[in-house]
Amino acid sequence: MALLETSKYSQGSVLGSVNPDLASERQTASFCVEKLTALLDGGTEQTRIRRAVVEAIQSDPVFSRENQYFQTQNERYEAAVRKAVHLQKKMHEMGWTENGPEYKYIYRALSGDVAFLLHRVFMRSISVLGSDKQIAKWIPLATQHKLIGSYAQTELGHGTYLQGLETTAVFDTATQEFILNTPKISAMKWWPGDMGRSATHTVVFAQLYIHGKCYGIHPFIVQIRSLQDHSLCPGITAGDIGPKMNFEHIDNGYLLLKNVRIPRENMLSKFCEVRPDGTYVRQGSQQINYFTMTTVRISLISDEVLTPLMKACTIAIRYSAVRRQSKLKPGEQEAKILDYQTQQEKLLPQLAAAYAFHFVNDYLQELFNRGYGEIQRKNFDMLPELHALSSGFKAVITQQCTAGVEICLRACGGHGYSLLSGLPSLYTKIIASCIYEGENTILLLQTARFLLKCFMAANAGQPVPPSVTYLAAVKHGKCPAKNKLDFLSPDIYTEAYQHVAVRLTSSAAAKLQDLIQSGVKKHDAWNQCTVQLVQAAKAHCHYIAVKNFAETVEKLETKADIQKIMKHLCDLFALHGIFSNTGAFLHDGYISAAQIDMVTASYLDLLAVIRKDAVPLVDAFDFTDKSLNSALGSYDGQVYQRLYEWAQKSPTNQMSPAYERYLKPLLHNTLSKL
Amino acid sequence: MALLETSKYSQGSVLGSVNPDLASERQTASFCVEKLTALLDGGTEQTRIRRAVVEAIQSDPVFSRENQYFQTQNERYEAAVRKAVHLQKKMHEMGWTENGPEYKYIYRALSGDVAFLLHRVFMRSISVLGSDKQIAKWIPLATQHKLIGSYAQTELGHGTYLQGLETTAVFDTATQEFILNTPKISAMKWWPGDMGRSATHTVVFAQLYIHGKCYGIHPFIVQIRSLQDHSLCPGITAGDIGPKMNFEHIDNGYLLLKNVRIPRENMLSKFCEVRPDGTYVRQGSQQINYFTMTTVRISLISDEVLTPLMKACTIAIRYSAVRRQSKLKPGEQEAKILDYQTQQEKLLPQLAAAYAFHFVNDYLQELFNRGYGEIQRKNFDMLPELHALSSGFKAVITQQCTAGVEICLRACGGHGYSLLSGLPSLYTKIIASCIYEGENTILLLQTARFLLKCFMAANAGQPVPPSVTYLAAVKHGKCPAKNKLDFLSPDIYTEAYQHVAVRLTSSAAAKLQDLIQSGVKKHDAWNQCTVQLVQAAKAHCHYIAVKNFAETVEKLETKADIQKIMKHLCDLFALHGIFSNTGAFLHDGYISAAQIDMVTASYLDLLAVIRKDAVPLVDAFDFTDKSLNSALGSYDGQVYQRLYEWAQKSPTNQMSPAYERYLKPLLHNTLSKL
Repeated sequence: MALLETSKYSQGSVLGSVNPDLASERQTASFCVEKLTALLDGGTEQTRIRRAVVEAIQSDPVFSRENQYFQTQNERYEAAVRKAVHLQKKMHEMGWTENGPEYKYIYRALSGDVAFLLHRVFMRSISVLGSDKQIAKWIPLATQHKLIGSYAQTELGHGTYLQGLETTAVFDTATQEFILNTPKISAMKWWPGDMGRSATHTVVFAQLYIHGKCYGIHPFIVQIRSLQDHSLCPGITAGDIGPKMNFEHIDNGYLLLKNVRIPRENMLSKFCEVRPDGTYVRQGSQQINYFTMTTVRISLISDEVLTPLMKACTIAIRYSAVRRQSKLKPGEQEAKILDYQTQQEKLLPQLAAAYAFHFVNDYLQELFNRGYGEIQRKNFDMLPELHALSSGFKAVITQQCTAGVEICLRACGGHGYSLLSGLPSLYTKIIASCIYEGENTILLLQTARFLLKCFMAANAGQPVPPSVTYLAAVKHGKCPAKNKLDFLSPDIYTEAYQHVAVRLTSSAAAKLQDLIQSGVKKHDAWNQCTVQLVQAAKAHCHYIAVKNFAETVEKLETKADIQKIMKHLCDLFALHGIFSNTGAFLHDGYISAAQIDMVTASYLDLLAVIRKDAVPLVDAFDFTDKSLNSALGSYDGQVYQRLYEWAQKSPTNQMSPAYERYLKPLLHNTLSKL
Repeated sequence: MALLETSKYSQGSVLGSVNPDLASERQTASFCVEKLTALLDGGTEQTRIRRAVVEAIQSDPVFSRENQYFQTQNERYEAAVRKAVHLQKKMHEMGWTENGPEYKYIYRALSGDVAFLLHRVFMRSISVLGSDKQIAKWIPLATQHKLIGSYAQTELGHGTYLQGLETTAVFDTATQEFILNTPKISAMKWWPGDMGRSATHTVVFAQLYIHGKCYGIHPFIVQIRSLQDHSLCPGITAGDIGPKMNFEHIDNGYLLLKNVRIPRENMLSKFCEVRPDGTYVRQGSQQINYFTMTTVRISLISDEVLTPLMKACTIAIRYSAVRRQSKLKPGEQEAKILDYQTQQEKLLPQLAAAYAFHFVNDYLQELFNRGYGEIQRKNFDMLPELHALSSGFKAVITQQCTAGVEICLRACGGHGYSLLSGLPSLYTKIIASCIYEGENTILLLQTARFLLKCFMAANAGQPVPPSVTYLAAVKHGKCPAKNKLDFLSPDIYTEAYQHVAVRLTSSAAAKLQDLIQSGVKKHDAWNQCTVQLVQAAKAHCHYIAVKNFAETVEKLETKADIQKIMKHLCDLFALHGIFSNTGAFLHDGYISAAQIDMVTASYLDLLAVIRKDAVPLVDAFDFTDKSLNSALGSYDGQVYQRLYEWAQKSPTNQMSPAYERYLKPLLHNTLSKL
């Protein structure tokens, strides 16, 4: 343990030993933290590799994030470019490759604070959408960084609805070129990362026109800046879209195209080709393309959503164990705020959610791998289910983790509000995940559409994908729980969640049918049901999450201590969901009011139980101090010293011209005034 | 209307006329916007004064906020100091005084973006806590800005629990001085505004020691910087606490005191005095002091909490009327996102809450004025009720308005995430209101303690304050609503809210008593009930808010069109509360599941009704474009042009050294690497 304490210590200043209030929390852990870490990593070997990557990255001063909270947007951008360039060197030095086992830990170790992430998306889109010839031409150039790529899809006036994009690419048979234009201001490309200042090339999505006929959205490789001097190419207007809530390190950009001509060969043509005479040819199946969005949504959950929540929990829980405020018992010293029931009720459900969603992520990864295997065998049957689950969970997890980070921030009071706590930047970053890669409401409605379809099919006796077979089995029973301990049985609560998901799906379906039968047009009827459809989709995901957590716990039988604490967290996750949404369970009497009181009692009991292991449970996430970059969350819990030392380095403690210019004339009454 | 359009136009760039999608929303208003504005202002004369102040402030370039989103923390601070100094001149020019009718509009017109706010708190604390002699000495100095004051209460380790403050003031009879010390790092003063870089003096709260005996917390005037050259005084260490989530313009500071000696006369001594021989004398009643917190909590609601929510609603609703995305009906053009039920369900309840809380604020102001009158007559009977209501509503309103701003931000998708939308800064600022001036959970527990006390008293037949007499009348009936239209009756839903508030209070009281009777110690029992006590306090405030809204609507009978739309908003506010918290109403069967379905139906119907007036309802808030400072929310709805023009001015579009330093060597393969 001594070794760990040293290795986790950081943030530049030399402080004393571990705060005794934090040390005492670790002495009573009911389980082995190291074992739980290995479980989360997927094995001790993974833990070893991850730690080696973290050590290599975080010991390199170029990758330091210590000044991050003091930097301007320009400084953040420049640092991110510097890190991206340095990373190339580092990877070579360390022998890391893009296909190696270390790769997935690199981005995490950098906390995403690096440029050229869109360069990878540029490469992936060429690999997926390009012909063999195009791949052979562009991928080596990109790999060797002879160009910097971006990905220009979203427009100022168009996000989610791709068919609405207004950028045009008109084929000119005479010159064998496409002529690209953003004909209106709303057609301007807006948001693409790395495009504002860095990229030399980008993949532009545009409406293809041949001989006056529109063939819909297609991708085109467009050079936007000179490879010689980085000046903008003819017909190109581009720049940075300015300040954002976070992502200051990324140069999200805008792009105007005015009669930009590109050769015919620059339309990515794995699936569609334009022949020299203007003939349009479709080839192969585009279904794999549809799979790409699924890939992205699943892959962002871990790094962009779970990691921030885990970090926020670590910071808030460690802080709550060292912060003392007010007295619980008269005559005693002030109490740790973690001992207040209201503080436990804020933080511990977030901790349980972090674990629950970690296991959901494992589940989705496994499902995804299976689906990918099937697709390789040209079997696309799993796609709709995969799409529905990845969409729904992207929405539910981003939403709940964002709310969780906000709760952690507020639970740290004033100190949580300081950027030095690390919490504001976690929040301002994670909230974007609710919007990008599919706006959450729209995604939930896609899940709901799938649910409705499966509900109809299941009730017509047709086969449905495994995750929704439960929709066929509408049960009209009641929850059998007789006392509060019964609610610690996974069967009891999983069944309750299932019941609610079925009820909400079936009642949304019934409302939709009633409306249509009463003469409301289909699209209007759909719109009038959307609030309830969103509820159904959420209930479905919540049910799967609870069920999956319970099943995961069951499989841990060889690790008794870990299993026990995970069981508590699973119970808490499930009961918190009921406690905070009692109406859904009470509505048709499946759970009675007396049973809700039992849920409440068990839920509050669990808070006190899990509170005892709260610090070890966040220690198991195994973040270094440098990863957390937080004055409140450090492993040693020396909160006040760290805040003070760090604040002193702030640029706001440099000399300001405000005194000579304004304060002195005011105080010396030499303002020419009054 | 033409005049208004011009006068509301701003943001530096010259754009065309009003976006037709927005203009059409205004043509169908069911009520007179100008009349509603006057109602919100409290009369047409108030509207006139407010607009004159706004015009005078916003036409003065020194007060411009246009570059705010591009500025560093240092630049923000310097601008705020400049504005504060300029404001003195402006007030003189305009003939505005601190007691004049214009005064309350000045801060609002500046959007709070000005320094020296704590100077006023410094003055107020001397006026309230100082002797006549102290007032005569310090107030003129402060008024003439011969010093700049601050207010140093919060410490690094101590916030809410004042008794826990660790700063000491030891009386030295030999020199007739107090010796002030911050003996530990956790005792350091931390957070006081204007203290980091500006203040010359501050009121320090410290534990008073005389002859070794502690007399508790007292206030002392301490000079911290030289009036000559602004250097720190002997024994003083002070500076800025660094970057925060918002409030970059304020120099929140830290302060260490090492054997700082101040004369005996510097202890504020209206209520307590230390005589030359060290005798400690209490005098007068401190109850008025207790009243100060109430004042602050009520006064912050309007400017710091309601205004941001109203601005966020204005921005998000105008944007939703011009943003078109996806198709509602096949074959038609893309739909305004405001036409989607899910978008309405996000935004319109926030709009209803803004109005509901505006009227709660009126109610609290009136109650406060009445209470103040009583106190002047030495009658302190109203204090406990006033304290409970101001605490509870401070918590409930800050919490709900913060959530509302976040919903507005997310409802604007990617563009809401740009600082240029104005929404991120509204959010990062309003969230602080949940923490400052009493952390919300602690305030709710104070309200709950009052509720419990009154509940016991009422049920023992003793008299209780007017706002809680309902606690005596526990009814066991059922909600009489028979169809969805019945839920548009204020009696029906107000009664339901009342029922829930009584039930939650009585069940928390019962649980507390049961625990104590079963042998749990009182403080432990209290802690074990706090989650439920918080629920009871919230339910109480929610009930009062609904009841007050309904009563306000009733009084509007002379203004039929306004009354009608306010009635819709009142209904929406009430039904949204039931819809999003059905369990509370279903729990004991007061409302049945069938009735909840009626609530849902009426609630969803209302969304479609209010949607028609959504833009006029935000227009009535009467924000100028300069107040909103938002590319999405301008009166003319020219969203895309404004985003583009504004982004081009961002410092991120200046030359960056990143190209020469990193990108060029990378692209030209001249990095000494690989």
